[in-house]
Amino acid sequence: MLTMQEALSRLTAYWTAQGALVVQPMNTEVGAGTLNPATFLRVLGPEPWRVVYVEPSVRPDDSRYGENPNRLQTHTQLQVILKPDPGNSQELYLGSLAAIGIDVAAHDVRFVEDNWASPALGAWGLGWEVWLDGLEITQFTYFQQAGGLNLDPVSVEITYGIERIIMALQEKQHFKEIEYAPGVSYGEVFGQSEYEMSRYYLDDADIETTRGLLDLYAREAQRMIDAKLPVPAHTFVLKCSQAFNVLDSRGAVSTAERASEFARMRRLAGEVAKLWVDRRTELGLPLGTSVAPEPARPISAVQTDDQPRTLVFEIGAEELPPAELRAAREQVLRLVTEGLAGTRLEHGEIRVFGTPRRLIVVVQQVAAREDDHVRTVKGPKTQAPAKAIEGFARGHGVSADDLETEEFNGVPHLVLRRHEAGRAAPEVLADVLAKVVSGLRAAKNMRWNDPKLAFSRPLRWLTALWGDDVVPVAVSNLAAGRQTRLLRTAVPPVADIASAETFLETLGVNGIVADHEDRRELIVIGAQDLVYPDGRIDVKGEAALIDQITDLVEQPLPLLGTFDEGYLTLPDAVLTTVMRKHQRYLPVRDEDGKLLPMFVTVANGPVDVELVRAGNEAVLRARYEDARFFYRADLDTPLAEMTARLSRLTFTDKLGSMADRAGRIGALARQLGDRLGLGSPTLDRAAELVKFDLGSQLVTEMTSLAGVMARDYALHAGESRAVAEAVFEAELPRNTGDALPRTLPGALLSLADRLDLVAGLAATVGLPTGSSDPFAVRRAVLGLLAVHRSTPEFASLSLTDALAVAAAAQPVPVGPEVLAAVSDFLAKRLEQALTEEGRPVDRVRAVLPHFARPSVADTLLAQLSVAVGDADFAAVAAAIQRARRIVPEGTIASYDTGALKEPAELALHDAVTAVRAGLDPSVVDLPRFVTATGQLVEPVNRFFDDVLVMAEDPAIRAARLGLLAAVRDLGEGLLDWPQLRI
Amino acid sequence: MLTMQEALSRLTAYWTAQGALVVQPMNTEVGAGTLNPATFLRVLGPEPWRVVYVEPSVRPDDSRYGENPNRLQTHTQLQVILKPDPGNSQELYLGSLAAIGIDVAAHDVRFVEDNWASPALGAWGLGWEVWLDGLEITQFTYFQQAGGLNLDPVSVEITYGIERIIMALQEKQHFKEIEYAPGVSYGEVFGQSEYEMSRYYLDDADIETTRGLLDLYAREAQRMIDAKLPVPAHTFVLKCSQAFNVLDSRGAVSTAERASEFARMRRLAGEVAKLWVDRRTELGLPLGTSVAPEPARPISAVQTDDQPRTLVFEIGAEELPPAELRAAREQVLRLVTEGLAGTRLEHGEIRVFGTPRRLIVVVQQVAAREDDHVRTVKGPKTQAPAKAIEGFARGHGVSADDLETEEFNGVPHLVLRRHEAGRAAPEVLADVLAKVVSGLRAAKNMRWNDPKLAFSRPLRWLTALWGDDVVPVAVSNLAAGRQTRLLRTAVPPVADIASAETFLETLGVNGIVADHEDRRELIVIGAQDLVYPDGRIDVKGEAALIDQITDLVEQPLPLLGTFDEGYLTLPDAVLTTVMRKHQRYLPVRDEDGKLLPMFVTVANGPVDVELVRAGNEAVLRARYEDARFFYRADLDTPLAEMTARLSRLTFTDKLGSMADRAGRIGALARQLGDRLGLGSPTLDRAAELVKFDLGSQLVTEMTSLAGVMARDYALHAGESRAVAEAVFEAELPRNTGDALPRTLPGALLSLADRLDLVAGLAATVGLPTGSSDPFAVRRAVLGLLAVHRSTPEFASLSLTDALAVAAAAQPVPVGPEVLAAVSDFLAKRLEQALTEEGRPVDRVRAVLPHFARPSVADTLLAQLSVAVGDADFAAVAAAIQRARRIVPEGTIASYDTGALKEPAELALHDAVTAVRAGLDPSVVDLPRFVTATGQLVEPVNRFFDDVLVMAEDPAIRAARLGLLAAVRDLGEGLLDWPQLRI
Repeated sequence: MLTMQEALSRLTAYWTAQGALVVQPMNTEVGAGTLNPATFLRVLGPEPWRVVYVEPSVRPDDSRYGENPNRLQTHTQLQVILKPDPGNSQELYLGSLAAIGIDVAAHDVRFVEDNWASPALGAWGLGWEVWLDGLEITQFTYFQQAGGLNLDPVSVEITYGIERIIMALQEKQHFKEIEYAPGVSYGEVFGQSEYEMSRYYLDDADIETTRGLLDLYAREAQRMIDAKLPVPAHTFVLKCSQAFNVLDSRGAVSTAERASEFARMRRLAGEVAKLWVDRRTELGLPLGTSVAPEPARPISAVQTDDQPRTLVFEIGAEELPPAELRAAREQVLRLVTEGLAGTRLEHGEIRVFGTPRRLIVVVQQVAAREDDHVRTVKGPKTQAPAKAIEGFARGHGVSADDLETEEFNGVPHLVLRRHEAGRAAPEVLADVLAKVVSGLRAAKNMRWNDPKLAFSRPLRWLTALWGDDVVPVAVSNLAAGRQTRLLRTAVPPVADIASAETFLETLGVNGIVADHEDRRELIVIGAQDLVYPDGRIDVKGEAALIDQITDLVEQPLPLLGTFDEGYLTLPDAVLTTVMRKHQRYLPVRDEDGKLLPMFVTVANGPVDVELVRAGNEAVLRARYEDARFFYRADLDTPLAEMTARLSRLTFTDKLGSMADRAGRIGALARQLGDRLGLGSPTLDRAAELVKFDLGSQLVTEMTSLAGVMARDYALHAGESRAVAEAVFEAELPRNTGDALPRTLPGALLSLADRLDLVAGLAATVGLPTGSSDPFAVRRAVLGLLAVHRSTPEFASLSLTDALAVAAAAQPVPVGPEVLAAVSDFLAKRLEQALTEEGRPVDRVRAVLPHFARPSVADTLLAQLSVAVGDADFAAVAAAIQRARRIVPEGTIASYDTGALKEPAELALHDAVTAVRAGLDPSVVDLPRFVTATGQLVEPVNRFFDDVLVMAEDPAIRAARLGLLAAVRDLGEGLLDWPQLRI
Repeated sequence: MLTMQEALSRLTAYWTAQGALVVQPMNTEVGAGTLNPATFLRVLGPEPWRVVYVEPSVRPDDSRYGENPNRLQTHTQLQVILKPDPGNSQELYLGSLAAIGIDVAAHDVRFVEDNWASPALGAWGLGWEVWLDGLEITQFTYFQQAGGLNLDPVSVEITYGIERIIMALQEKQHFKEIEYAPGVSYGEVFGQSEYEMSRYYLDDADIETTRGLLDLYAREAQRMIDAKLPVPAHTFVLKCSQAFNVLDSRGAVSTAERASEFARMRRLAGEVAKLWVDRRTELGLPLGTSVAPEPARPISAVQTDDQPRTLVFEIGAEELPPAELRAAREQVLRLVTEGLAGTRLEHGEIRVFGTPRRLIVVVQQVAAREDDHVRTVKGPKTQAPAKAIEGFARGHGVSADDLETEEFNGVPHLVLRRHEAGRAAPEVLADVLAKVVSGLRAAKNMRWNDPKLAFSRPLRWLTALWGDDVVPVAVSNLAAGRQTRLLRTAVPPVADIASAETFLETLGVNGIVADHEDRRELIVIGAQDLVYPDGRIDVKGEAALIDQITDLVEQPLPLLGTFDEGYLTLPDAVLTTVMRKHQRYLPVRDEDGKLLPMFVTVANGPVDVELVRAGNEAVLRARYEDARFFYRADLDTPLAEMTARLSRLTFTDKLGSMADRAGRIGALARQLGDRLGLGSPTLDRAAELVKFDLGSQLVTEMTSLAGVMARDYALHAGESRAVAEAVFEAELPRNTGDALPRTLPGALLSLADRLDLVAGLAATVGLPTGSSDPFAVRRAVLGLLAVHRSTPEFASLSLTDALAVAAAAQPVPVGPEVLAAVSDFLAKRLEQALTEEGRPVDRVRAVLPHFARPSVADTLLAQLSVAVGDADFAAVAAAIQRARRIVPEGTIASYDTGALKEPAELALHDAVTAVRAGLDPSVVDLPRFVTATGQLVEPVNRFFDDVLVMAEDPAIRAARLGLLAAVRDLGEGLLDWPQLRI
């Protein structure tokens, strides 16, 4: 059996053989190998660096007294930095797995999107978690920034989680059982320390002392920065980080403190980074300067056919994230379509396929050449001075005699006619395709060892064929050929493509399913087959997950796994959250929708099924074990204790703790309930409990379970079903399309939650602008509107009134201008929501004055959609609009009745008076309005027919305009009429 | 070339193959691998443990900005713990050297005494530095105690100094040049950090911040101890240690603070150790319990000869320290002599030889058996009751009839006669020799994997032959045989001995020179030959060093090395101190006594001479480079600045800084000078400078150079030769037999120094008792006496008076009882010094009343030694003694002259009156006294002849006794007459 120490030794030796230096772990506590100066400082600047080291990584928060089988306050990382990116780091990495005896062909090894950012270090990168049969064993990151500085060259960071790897290889259920050295278990060596350090971090570290240390460290870090000594400064930043983590694990860090400490550390780390770069430059870059690879040269173009042929273009990438893959397919289609449109090359259908490792363009019937073509270049007028004419000719490399004449707008000009022969397809395509590659952009872009390109993940190869011929595309480092890459485990891992027409077939023969839909179908059918007849896969409900899985594999191989039935005692939401979010497994249910103790996972390519199944089962077991640990601990915790923990969680600096916020929510919900006559003992109790589960361990670990666990724990604690439901519903809706509260206490709490959030944040951090919305205020407002709309009992409640109540309860003043801004924001969100639901924008805008009572707006919209087909409404609307159009803005609806003389005037005056008398402006009801105002139609029309509004006599004119203004204003409280396009 | 990282990897692999675990360095700064819990905690208790790890060891004090070629603030240790001692750890260690390509047969690898103690950890052990061609590459220690607890089993700790080893193997002159990894130098990887951390430790660490950290750490350590969590507690003890070291390197630690911090750390470490042991016991000793090896069984005795044969007994040891070896030879001789005396075995001469690895007893002509013998056991009296008689017989397993009768003091007793056959020599010798081994004790003893033995170093084998036969000795784990061990590099490393008579020859054939004198001669002659004709070895002056060298080798091989002439610009004392004290090299001088740039070192055994020479030269170069670094830095430092640094060195808690002390010394010297009329400008200036070189870097490094460097630096700074000499002489004598001041300013300063030391310490820590004398007060007092005695100008100075002056200047009150105690101490030391010089103890005691003016005592002693042969003196002395004997104690020397009637009385009275008139009691001059008192002899004798002193008349008796008391008191101020045995 490979012992842990032997594995460390072999990995170190492997990377040493790849030219890495070996250094020692940092001699101060670090949370990750990244913090060691051998990473954090060395990735900065232009010097090359290649290093491997072991780093015991201290995570006080992960302390579990050594009881949890998978979680340790100190775990062992093996860290590798390759600077610059060697271009084949994934392959090198797979080689390292082989070095510790992992058969990467038999296992399911995958690169699953995982972007990394450390706010405290001003650092980020893009990359993956590497999964071994569903187990995250490595973090693999292309480092883009550190200490706030852009990294050039980019470094590859590979971080192995050694305990997990060894547990998997040794098939151990608990880290203590790992065979650390021959005959010596991990528990024997580290067990006592694990327990004691857990005690320290969770229970016994003195908070005041640790705060004192943190301050002294920060002070010393700053002094060293001032002294221009980045190395000791960095050490003290690390000590700050550890002290902070200890405070955190002791529950002593408020959100505000967290933010300010992160800001301080980020600032210090940034200064350290700058200093380091400066110092290395001063020292003359002792390790030299990385040299970027030479640009690639295209192969020589050869064209062997003159008939239309298929074009295939494959852009090979390292594993693209599913969302980016989807966007990239669309982008490639657009770029190719536009690119070809810019040529004179005839072609047929353009299709784009994608897998995590490739984007494939297939264009049918691409002509062999462009048609020949005459291009006219416009020159000076024929009367222009000779000098100008000669200048034009010389500029184009011809003599003035070669110029011809052509009229433009009747003016004769000299022109040059270029007779251009159509270019051959490969040449044309090479240009187009090069621009496709260089034009590719993702939502989040990165850089790698390519000097010019930027994309979601590195692009590593190009395959481009027009018929039998290679299209000589070359972009930056990449030059196309006829070779494609297969699965990394294929033998050989590459294949030559004979012709474009055989490309997809060649991929298919080698197992790679290029088309998303094909892969999806294989997965759905495969999964259903696996669980038949006992189980069901909720294909519709899991559509998003299935789509994601589809874009995680090239050759899908669904596998059925099982887990111990005992875990079914955990709440459904816990089980499925782990499956979906953490593992991308498909849950399996019986006919009644009850979860079965099984799951479907989808491997990539031909693996050893039993091995991979066992691996995935072990991972799920570990995760469930973890969840059970928290769940049991939570069940043992009185609700009051969890509630008490809320006071240790700060909501924001100025808005107090989460306990303060929960208090405000509860009080507000009860106030609103009283106002609406909806108060109840259920509401009262739920208001006391609201958000208590944020103090539970499980929700701390899986925040998406907030509310769900509240319901579960409340029931276990003996609360009534109604109260439990209300604390659950208080969190609804959690996102667009989520369920809405169905009970009044739940709805009131949900509303109160969102009102409190919006009022408080608007007054402190401000409303969100642009794409930044860290507190998800937009989502809260959308929820606010949705809950109001879905709760008929709230129809009479004005959200602006409710906001004012919420505002009054904030610990900060919320001024009227803030409330006005929030109202505006609310209206905009309502407009957005309604139009996204498919309502015509004009009608939406017409009802928007009712944004504060969105259910009223809903009613009105419904009435409008009926009314728009109705002649009476049309006539009323036309009459009102007619009046509105002629009345200057600012005219008020009062007039001297004595000045009205004409019969049509008088008739209208009578009609207006009658309608006014019969209309209750507080009743918002379109049909009623139409009925009531129907009598106006005829008088309005007669008025316009018979009367010249703009009479010369100013008094008469004023009276007529006043009368029309009265017409205009009749529907004022109902609709924003000018918005309506009828 | 073996890179440093490869060396670490190979050593780790080597020890892993020996069953060691690999762990990571400590993730908090440590000064040595010993502090890692994998050593400090794991050596405690009975659990076995075998571990190897790399430990970057932080020594803030060694910061040199990366400029010094051999000294780093962080160096790399490779640490190995073998628990329990496997019994062959030295051989295992040599195997590890081979693993990194060191040919241990070609190099001179030696184990040189080096005992280790960490006061801060309550830890100590005995062992060696391992020298590779004179370079210390490893610390090798048998751990005896940690955290104040005795270790059982004992652990072997092996600590490699990696940079030094690699520099030697790669033949680099500067650590930065080390090839750390292929193509990457150490300087490139660690150079910047070395500079910056040096800056931090020497210049930039904030003292108040660091003090704050130290306190917080200590507080947290204590809290963790209270919480019974030894692991985090230990971590905080380590952090204390680092913070303390930083304060120290910033020059912010006074001696008092050092002592109190050490005490605190020792206490904390002790509590941690106890807690750890308790916790492991509670946990049921997860790693099990070490089992001590089984006792050895002696081989069966066989005797093949009946004629006297030689006995050879060899006790094989791991390398014994020279001083212990010398003592052990004597001890073995005594034990064997006594042991054989307790047998009835005839034997010839007993000789004992010794080398670092063996003690050899050779006894000539040991008889084959003891003579037969009748032993008489004394029983009850013949008249005793029958019961008693029967009991006696039964007790001896005989019947009462078997008893015989014998008279004791005329009383007839029953006796039992046992006819005992003489035992065979092997049997007798086995007993005797076993007791020799178990009785061996050193000045400082240790334990190893033997359950019963204790000695200076582990005993590993026994060879015991009587003639051709093995003597069946068995002691604890050891059983004797006929095999001896040769040099470890011999092939094979063992030899069988045919017979005792051939033993020494067999050793000799294999190169081992058993006899100290033979080895010494080989060294002396060899060294002289090597330097002939240019150089000289000062065989007499270096006798102690040569003796030490002689006991460091078994097969001496003197080698000549050279060093760069440039180093000769360093002071002689620096060069020779390094050679002698650090390297045990013999300095070489020319005819005029000028140092030549060469040295003689003595290797052990047949080595590759060129290799070993080069290695030793490199070591010396490195040391001289180091010394030059300090020397130059010191020369660049104004004397005033060095003096100023004295205020940062505290002498003791209560006695102030070294600056305070130097001030007191200067002032006192000038006071005494004034008092004696010996004041001078030289004294004044020297008094200002005294001890300034304690503030120099070189003296900080090599304290034995104090004074020598003061002279050198003073001269360089332009002080007069006289002043320079005085500050040098102020330090004399540095030890017994050292030179004494020859100038008056020097003598005054020396005296003042010692007076100040004694007065201050006596009043604070007290005078030394037993063997503990941490401030070397005894040496100071001996120096005080020596300087006084050697300076005629001081004859009139009373040391008790001078002490009172010194006492008055102390910052603490020094009471009369203290001064009395010091006087007593002074007198005792003088008595000791004089008797050690060979003066008869009675005369010494007789002059001891003059201890405060020891030169007076000297004079008197000289006069006494002349006088004792002189009849006049004898007569006077006899007369005085005669008077003293008869006069009761307490009788005063006054009498009623009127009561004197007898002529003899009157004659004596006249004589006494005349002598009294002629004697000046303040003049201490024996011949003059004898001359003056000569006239008393006759009257005294007559008085005793003629007069009955004890007259019946009380008045007469009183007068007569008073008269004799006057005689008695005539010499009172001169000698303590009763002490004198004439």
